[in-house]
Amino acid sequence: MKTYSVEVRVWLKPSVFDPQGHAVEQAMHTLGYAEASDLRIGKYMQLTVQAESEAEAELRTQEMCERVLSNPVMETFAFTLKELVAE
Amino acid sequence: MKTYSVEVRVWLKPSVFDPQGHAVEQAMHTLGYAEASDLRIGKYMQLTVQAESEAEAELRTQEMCERVLSNPVMETFAFTLKELVAE
Repeated sequence: MKTYSVEVRVWLKPSVFDPQGHAVEQAMHTLGYAEASDLRIGKYMQLTVQAESEAEAELRTQEMCERVLSNPVMETFAFTLKELVAE
Repeated sequence: MKTYSVEVRVWLKPSVFDPQGHAVEQAMHTLGYAEASDLRIGKYMQLTVQAESEAEAELRTQEMCERVLSNPVMETFAFTLKELVAE
């Protein structure tokens, strides 16, 4: 059994309005960061996954993202996966 | 003036308890994903930044992260920055 360190990013689809991102962008402008725009806020998740192989870890992570960690109607996700080697 | 596409990740420091991550991890176990553990949930932000140079964009983004996008007491951040070239 191998252990993988997984990083998942989830963000709203471009057609979905992001009120949280809009509010933070306004706050940034008020604070003097006029050069910032198009701010969108999503989620960043770190987890470890146990699997027999990298292929299995990818398959299971893909399924977790689709079923639990994101809402496929409104969100898109991407993940990266790295084997943790015991030292 | 150049335009940079910036991706910011913000996550809780290891010593800070993450109730949201804990709840989602429990839900994953209930749904049959026993191989997932150590789930922590942070934020993933996308924005565009206008600057004269990459060094200036980095400096300003660093400042935005410290002052607005993260809480340095409880959170750590990292960002990547890529120049957007008009086609």
